[in-house]
Amino acid sequence: MSDLLQDLQWRYATKKMDPSKTVPQEKVDRIVEAVRLTASSSGLQPYEVFVVTNPDLRAQIKPHAWNQAQVTDCSHLLVFAAWDNYTVERINHMFDLVNTVRGFKNEGWEAYRQQILGSYPQRDAETNYQHAARQAYIGVGTALIAAAQEKVDSVPMEGFDPAKVDEILGLSARGLRSVVILPLGYRAGEGDWLQNLEKVRRPQEEFVTELA
Amino acid sequence: MSDLLQDLQWRYATKKMDPSKTVPQEKVDRIVEAVRLTASSSGLQPYEVFVVTNPDLRAQIKPHAWNQAQVTDCSHLLVFAAWDNYTVERINHMFDLVNTVRGFKNEGWEAYRQQILGSYPQRDAETNYQHAARQAYIGVGTALIAAAQEKVDSVPMEGFDPAKVDEILGLSARGLRSVVILPLGYRAGEGDWLQNLEKVRRPQEEFVTELA
Repeated sequence: MSDLLQDLQWRYATKKMDPSKTVPQEKVDRIVEAVRLTASSSGLQPYEVFVVTNPDLRAQIKPHAWNQAQVTDCSHLLVFAAWDNYTVERINHMFDLVNTVRGFKNEGWEAYRQQILGSYPQRDAETNYQHAARQAYIGVGTALIAAAQEKVDSVPMEGFDPAKVDEILGLSARGLRSVVILPLGYRAGEGDWLQNLEKVRRPQEEFVTELA
Repeated sequence: MSDLLQDLQWRYATKKMDPSKTVPQEKVDRIVEAVRLTASSSGLQPYEVFVVTNPDLRAQIKPHAWNQAQVTDCSHLLVFAAWDNYTVERINHMFDLVNTVRGFKNEGWEAYRQQILGSYPQRDAETNYQHAARQAYIGVGTALIAAAQEKVDSVPMEGFDPAKVDEILGLSARGLRSVVILPLGYRAGEGDWLQNLEKVRRPQEEFVTELA
């Protein structure tokens, strides 16, 4: 079995984290860096990651996240926050950055910029947000793997009130909407009902179909 | 730099694949297995993966995917197809499977089943599909990494007509809707404008914010 498959078998949705343990900063940095490097639609990276260590902020979030203990028992709470809209400025910023880094303008790339500018900003904000949020999930899938490789526990959570989290973290003012929160920490030695239970996935024949 | 970060640096949105090269089946199997093992909301795995090698089916899809050559130049086309709705049957199937595999009923798990049954099936199908599609993006993020670790090239594509792909592959009849297609293959030696250009990502200070 490959290391990746072993890491995916190792990880689980950690229900009880040990609040006395702190994930080393260099591990958190590598996890977030993996998210930064992964793919997104047209390379726009239409989301940001907030690394919340502040205990007060996490205590404020907890009641709006079904009081799930991992929010405060973790050492680092990642918040994936997607753009609330695709704007001309945001699109141009990314295309300009590409030109700056590569040091030249590519004709095909500029035509593609015009194509994106001619479609995304004209769509309604909710459609654009939904599209941006999907990209954040690529980041979540990446973070899960990066954490597992660092032997750091994580648990992706959708069960929270996004409007409240946006307010607590000041995301709305930045044009962002929270999508998923991901506590990073270490599993507690006991008190986690899920820890020793077998991982269950649909069998291959129910999940994969070959069309040859 | 960790292997994961190196793999993420190595991969890119391959624009030109070599049609004479075929990804070994065991690599494809490990890539799909990684997707099967990764996380999804409540563990429902609300999507399936189709592995399309059939040349005729891929030729039919191509004109509905902006004629992107990778659709037919790749050796395996992965199609991520999300549930078109959350139904009582689908939810119960997964919760029952968990009980069967673990060999017992857990009270908390059964309460959670009732909570899900009391909310998801009552929502409109489009809301449920959108939620399922997000989970498929966790799978896409996983597949990208799994492919890179196998030194297999891949390129996630949203630029296609989902209704047409659903029709060509018979997905609607299975209650599925195509979300992302992901050609797997090998980069061509030449003819790929993107291959030798620097990967561009927003700098850390624009992507990550620490709230300490």
